[in-house]
This record gives sequence, structure tokens and C-alpha cells, in this order.
Amino acid sequence: MDIDSTAQDKARFFAGAWGRVKALPGKLKAKVTSTAKSIKRLGQDDPRRLTHSLKVGLALTLVSLLYYARPIYDGFGVSGMWAVLTVVVVFEFTVGGTLSKSLNRGFATFLAGALGLGADYFASLFGKNGEPIVLGILVFLLAAAATFSRFFPRIKARYDYGVLIFILTFSLVAVSGYRVNELVVLAHQRLSTIIMGGATCMLISIFVCPVWAGEDLHKAIASNLEKLATYLEGFGGVYFQSSESDGMGTGKSFPQGYKSILNSKSSEESLANFARWEPGHGRFRLRHPWKHYLKIGALARQCAYQIEAINGCIGSDHIQGSEEFKGKLEGSCTKMSAECGKTLKALARSLKTMTDPYSSANTHVENSKAAMKDLKFALKAASLENADLAAILPAATVGSILVEIVKCVEKISEAVHELSQLAHFEKETVEPTVSPEKPPQLLHRGIIQPVLDGDSTANDNVVITIHEIISTDSPENEKACDQHQVPKPGKKIEAL
Amino acid sequence: MDIDSTAQDKARFFAGAWGRVKALPGKLKAKVTSTAKSIKRLGQDDPRRLTHSLKVGLALTLVSLLYYARPIYDGFGVSGMWAVLTVVVVFEFTVGGTLSKSLNRGFATFLAGALGLGADYFASLFGKNGEPIVLGILVFLLAAAATFSRFFPRIKARYDYGVLIFILTFSLVAVSGYRVNELVVLAHQRLSTIIMGGATCMLISIFVCPVWAGEDLHKAIASNLEKLATYLEGFGGVYFQSSESDGMGTGKSFPQGYKSILNSKSSEESLANFARWEPGHGRFRLRHPWKHYLKIGALARQCAYQIEAINGCIGSDHIQGSEEFKGKLEGSCTKMSAECGKTLKALARSLKTMTDPYSSANTHVENSKAAMKDLKFALKAASLENADLAAILPAATVGSILVEIVKCVEKISEAVHELSQLAHFEKETVEPTVSPEKPPQLLHRGIIQPVLDGDSTANDNVVITIHEIISTDSPENEKACDQHQVPKPGKKIEAL
Repeated sequence: MDIDSTAQDKARFFAGAWGRVKALPGKLKAKVTSTAKSIKRLGQDDPRRLTHSLKVGLALTLVSLLYYARPIYDGFGVSGMWAVLTVVVVFEFTVGGTLSKSLNRGFATFLAGALGLGADYFASLFGKNGEPIVLGILVFLLAAAATFSRFFPRIKARYDYGVLIFILTFSLVAVSGYRVNELVVLAHQRLSTIIMGGATCMLISIFVCPVWAGEDLHKAIASNLEKLATYLEGFGGVYFQSSESDGMGTGKSFPQGYKSILNSKSSEESLANFARWEPGHGRFRLRHPWKHYLKIGALARQCAYQIEAINGCIGSDHIQGSEEFKGKLEGSCTKMSAECGKTLKALARSLKTMTDPYSSANTHVENSKAAMKDLKFALKAASLENADLAAILPAATVGSILVEIVKCVEKISEAVHELSQLAHFEKETVEPTVSPEKPPQLLHRGIIQPVLDGDSTANDNVVITIHEIISTDSPENEKACDQHQVPKPGKKIEAL
Repeated sequence: MDIDSTAQDKARFFAGAWGRVKALPGKLKAKVTSTAKSIKRLGQDDPRRLTHSLKVGLALTLVSLLYYARPIYDGFGVSGMWAVLTVVVVFEFTVGGTLSKSLNRGFATFLAGALGLGADYFASLFGKNGEPIVLGILVFLLAAAATFSRFFPRIKARYDYGVLIFILTFSLVAVSGYRVNELVVLAHQRLSTIIMGGATCMLISIFVCPVWAGEDLHKAIASNLEKLATYLEGFGGVYFQSSESDGMGTGKSFPQGYKSILNSKSSEESLANFARWEPGHGRFRLRHPWKHYLKIGALARQCAYQIEAINGCIGSDHIQGSEEFKGKLEGSCTKMSAECGKTLKALARSLKTMTDPYSSANTHVENSKAAMKDLKFALKAASLENADLAAILPAATVGSILVEIVKCVEKISEAVHELSQLAHFEKETVEPTVSPEKPPQLLHRGIIQPVLDGDSTANDNVVITIHEIISTDSPENEKACDQHQVPKPGKKIEAL
């Protein structure tokens, strides 16, 4: 009986093991399929990744020619391997990254090589016995000092790789100098192979499907503004309408794209760092104000923090909101967020087209400010006699944070405008929708009145009361127009 | 006259130039002084930077011995330079970083070397003419595939350097194999010198003033919790009291330490990555749950976002707050933020001492929840008949966000508790302040009543109504105690 059960156990064990072995191909197949899928997704997300991989392969194969072609090989000897090494280490995804590493490597090698030769000469003055000691001390001091310099944030950001190569080359030259007498020849060989490898990388990265860090930064900032805009444009509708049907807790249905902005600082900074190394390309000049993008990025992050707070407040169900009160704020809040969204959309568009955003974005900024005032009036006017303050809280908080967002968006608008001045963006082309040839021309000498009633949707922003005036082309009319600081009709209509 | 003025101009020019030259040493001196100061500050901020620099110098000097000592040099030949190269490239600030790079480099070199030899053998089958073509294709394919694999986030995080070295070594071995026949000897030499360099780095980084990434991560998380705590503990006092004297706009006087948490994600992730490579050290075992720290870090960031929103709201002066209404919320809001601060302080302390935070932190969490309920009551009770809603808004918003913070802090408390379970933190040692020997013992059979009136400061948290009972040591009393789910007196008093 006992033996029987052991035999049964054994049989069960082997059956299980066999089952696992039989299942292995299936599992393997599933694993391979999922890996293949993730590879495909990775390539589809950004096809430039595939191009980059092929470019690295190309550069490496080209440089390997140094070894294959006998005449070149005889010229460089084993040093040819430095070219291979340089290509592998230096080739980065963006042009700026490749340039920064290549130039760092080139200059550091040159400088450290020269210093190493000097150190060798200096050490040789101390005789056969003193030489290794002096060299050892020099290597120790220089390596320690250079390593310490890498902790400086400025050096870390721009010259980290250069300092590394400096230590490396200095040690190699100083130390090997003790052995190899033809040091100058060696240094020359190394430098020329490194230049060859670096040049190959630079040329391929610039001329074969280049990935410009600057352009990436430009697009990243514009897309961040768009993500914020998408949230804010949708916010009013989703928050005020869905809550009417199913109460609170609808935080899930908001677009969550803005969350990626919260942690965008480091990637933006590294892109800006690389962008500085890049030559002028496309619509960007050599000294494009890349640093200014970081400022806009920081403001966008600030705005994202506020949105995160709103998202937290509305997603939670700690206090059941009062629908009546919410309805009172709906008009101005919806408009505030919609106008902020439109401002950001306009700013993103102006970044993309590289035109001055002033007139189009400014209209929306003014509208959102007007809505802010409306909110104040609505709050003042709201009768609170029967209201429960706890029920008012969620909507009031949303309103309060939206006020902060309006301010933040205004700052972003200013920063983008500043950028457009620094980078000499084109002025917005105004297409006059009313041709000046037609004699009876409409000129408005009216008041722009923000919509105050809560029922308006985001589509009709501004009611323009226009007193019809038959244009007499008199300068006085023009002047009147200017005095009121109202944009010209064509511009205005286009901006709306 | 004209000549005269030219001469005067010239004289002025030269005087100016001379002045600048004379000022040069002064400027140089100022520059040197400021650089020296910033070096000193850099060293004082973290003295381990200085130690690290000296360690790199030491490792490099030690490895240089390979060149100086003739017997070793004869054994390794020029390959000795790979040891120097390895030290420079592999030595990182933290032990984990050094280990990760050393091991990556070692394994990648071994694997790529073996593959390279195989590729050489395979290519040689195609005859003298086919060999370079086949090798070129192999290098191209492998380099492209390996480069593409670096885009996988998992590989990027842990094996990026290994893949780089893999491409490097494979290309070098495959390509140079076409020339050098003693490839196996070369590969052996390279591998052994790399192991030597890597081992030197690992030993020095582990045994000479080690900087553990894990310990840094542990401390960083604890200090982040403390920064949040400092803000929250001070918040009530500063916000409610200073505003009584000078109105709004006091955002400047709050401690701004929490701001560094907003962008802490990338540094925390890299520390956690390095920490996984580290052996057990100090109070951390080999498989310490480092990943769990990232969860706590993310929650702390969430809390920092909320604080950022509060900071924005109170710093701005868009709506003048009503002091009367603010006074009504003062009690519960102050208590909420103070209790949150105390919870975080307790959690930070328990992280530092590696004890289970459950009992001490939980008391404060419960207190803050009670204060949350008080806020609700205060809001319900607040008479709004004469109140202007716009004036109420700032304080109401602060209250609303504080509610979110309370929730967030509760989550942090749970996460830290979870960590303490995973990492087997010690149980809190309870020092009984009332010794059990004394026969007439106080046992409370009472109600813990959160302070409700607004005048209470953060110091007196809870009023414990204690019905004095002469302890008869009867089990019934004990049972009563347990039934009420009230912690035992000693523990309770200590926790408060």
C-alpha cells in the first residue's frame, strides 16, 4: 500500500514533469510571440529607433574597413581598433548627443595626450627610479581632481564624457609612456583614428535620417502644451455634465495625457543640453534660445501640478457636491478652462508653425480672465442661505484651482511670446476676410462682452456688439478703432 | 582741434585698456576665490565626493602597477591598458553602480568574445574572399540588433552598459580576428585584465568608505517624508496666524524643501536600480525590497503635488479671504495638517530606525481622519447668511486639498507598513511608562475625543477622558480594554 502510493506519487511526478516539458514549446512560442509583438510595438512607437539601429550598424561596418583594407591598416596598425571603439561609444540617438560626445572625446584626447606627454617628460627628469613614482603621483592627483570636477553640475551637464576620456587618455599615455618610446607616433595614430571614427559618426548622424535633439525638444514642449489643452478643453464638459448623471467619481474618464508632463524635467533638460551642440537645421538657427524652452517646460509642469490637484479633488468622493451650486459655477468655470485650453492650443500651434502667437493667444487669455471675473460675480451672487457649505466645497475648490490655472496659462503665454521674440518667429499673417475694395465696410465700434449666462457652451465665446457704421474711410474711424484697443475685424474674426 | 580730440580719444582708450589690464589680476583673484569657494561648498555638501575622487585615483594608481611591474607586464603585454580603461569607465559613485558596470562589462566581454570567435570561424568557411563580406554582414546585423535592444526600457535600465560593451567587443574580436591569428590568447588577456580592473574597482568601492546606493535611497525616501512633514506641521500655524496680521500672500515664509520632491523620480529610480546589484550591507539584506521604496516615493510625490497646489492657492492674492470663516476652519485644518505632519515624521523615524511604524503612525492617521470629520462638521455648522462666498473660497480650497493630503498620507502610511513587513522591520519596542508592579494602576475605559474647538494649537491633540479605575487585575478589565479597540495605556501615552 505504502509502496503503491510512492509509485503513484512517482508516476504523478513524472506525468507532471512530462506535461511541463510538453507545454514548453507552447510556452516558448507564447514567449516568442509576445517578445516579437513588443519589438514591433517599440518600432512602431518611434520608427526612428529602427533607423538609428541601422545607422549604428552602418557606421560600424564602414569603420571596420580600416581593418580590412590593407593599405589603411598598415598605416594605423592596431590603433584602428580605436576607431571601432569610438563609433560604438560615441554614436547616440540624437545628432546633438553624437556631436557632444564626439567633440568631447576629440578635444579631451588631444588635451590629455599633450598633458600626458608633458608628464612623461617631466617624470623622466627624476631618473630611472624616480620616474614611476612621479608618474604614479601625477596620475593619482590628476585622476582625483578630474573626478571631483565631474560633481560640478555645469561640468556634469556638458562635459562629463570629456572629463572621463581626459582621465582615461592621460593615464594611458602617462603610464604606457614608461614602456613605449614611440609615444608621439602612437598618440598621433590614436588621435587620427578617433577623429576618423568620430567623423564617421557625425556625418552619418547628420546626413542619414538625422534625429535633431532641438527639434525633439521643440515638439515635446508643443505636445506638452497640447496635452494640457486637451485636458482643459474637455474638463468643463466632462466634469459638469457627467456629474449630473452619475454624481462624483468620474475622474477616470478624463484624458490622462498630462501625467507624463509631471516627470518631464530630466528629459527636457538633456534634450536642451544636446540641442546646444547642434548646428542650425531646418527652421532653427545655430543660436536658437534652447534654454528658453526649459522655462516654458517648467511653467507647463506647474500647470500640470494644478491639474493633478483638480484631478485628485474631482476623482474623490469625500463630499457629495451640491448640483445646484455647481450649476451656478458651471458657466464661468467651463469657460475658464475652455479658454485656457484654447490659449494653450493656440500657443502649441504657434510653436509648431513658428509664428508669433500674440494676437490669437491673447484673445483667449483675455477671455479666460473675463471668465475669472464672472466667477467672482457668480460667487458673490450665489445665495447661500439654504446651502450646505460642505456640499459647495468640491465645485468651489475646482473654481479656485482653475483661477490658478488661468494665471499659469497667462505666464505660459508670455513665455511663448518671449520665445517668439528671441527666436524671431514670423508675425502672424492676417488674412483680411473683408476685402478693402468693397466701399460699404463694416467697422465695429463696439464692446466685447464676455458671455455671462451659464448655459453657453464653449463654442460661442464672445458676443460682439457691433454698431453698424458705413465706412467713409475717414481717419477718424480708424483712430476710434485704435483708441478702443480692439483688434481689426479681419484679425478678430480669424482669431475667434 | 580734431587731432587733439583723436589724441584724447586714444589716450582715453589706452587708459581704459590699461585700467582693464590693471584690474585683471583683481578679477582673476575674484574668479579664483569664487571657484575655490564653490569647490569647498561642493565638498562640504557631501564629503563623500572627495573620498570618491581619492578612491578613483587610488584604483587607477594601483592598476597602473600592471605596467610598472615588469613580470606582470610581460604576461599581459599591451592588454594591460584594458585594466586602466576598465577602471576609468567602470568606477561609479555608488557601490551598486560600480558593481553593475563591472559585472555588465565582464559578462558582456566574455559572451561577445566567445560569439566573436564563433563568427570568425564561421566566416573563415567562406574562403579568403568571402570572409570580410560575411564578417561585415555579421557585424552590421549584430550591432543593429543590439542597438535596437537598448530601446527596451527593462534592458535600458539594467543592462545598457553591458549591451554597449557587447557590441564593442564583438566588433573588435570579429574584425581584428581577420588579422591576428593568436585571437584566443588575446581574448584571454583582455578578459583577465578586465577582470583585474573590475575586481580592483569592486574591492575598493566596497571596502574603502563605501557609498551604498540602497542606503542612499532609504535615506532619501525618509528625508522626503520629513520634508513633507516639516511643511505640513508648520502649515497651520503660518497660514492661519500670519494671515491674521498681514492678510494673504505669505507663501514665501513656508519651508520650500518639499519642492525638491517634485522632480525626484529619476534619481530614485536610478538608485533603486543600482541598489539591486548590491550585496547585503548594514541593516539591509541581499533581497531587500528596493522596488517598494519607489512606491513610497511616488506617493510622496503625489503628496508634494497637492502641497504645491496649496502653496499656489495661499501664495496668491486673487481673493481676499474672510477672517471670520477662516477662523472657523482653523481648528480642524490646523489639526489635519499637524497630524499629517506627525504621521509622516513618525514614518520617517520608523524608516530611519527600521522599526514597524504601525502603532505610532496609526494613531496620528486616526487623529487626522477625526479632524477631517471635524472639518465636515465645521463646514456644516458654519452660518453662511452674511458670508460672501468669494471670501470663503481660499480657506475652503485649503481645507479641500488638506482632505486629499490626509488620504495621501494614509496611503503612504500603509505603504511604509507594507515595506516594514516585506523587509522584516523590528516591532516597535514598547516602553511601559506605568510599571506593572504598582498595584493601584490606572486603566482607562474611556473615549478618545478629538479636540473640536478652533482655539487649540497643534500641541494638544486628543482629550482622553479617563474614568479612574483601581486595577484589580481582573481579566474582565483587560477584556473591556480590548473590546474598545483602544491601545494599552503605556503604548498610547508613548504614541502621543
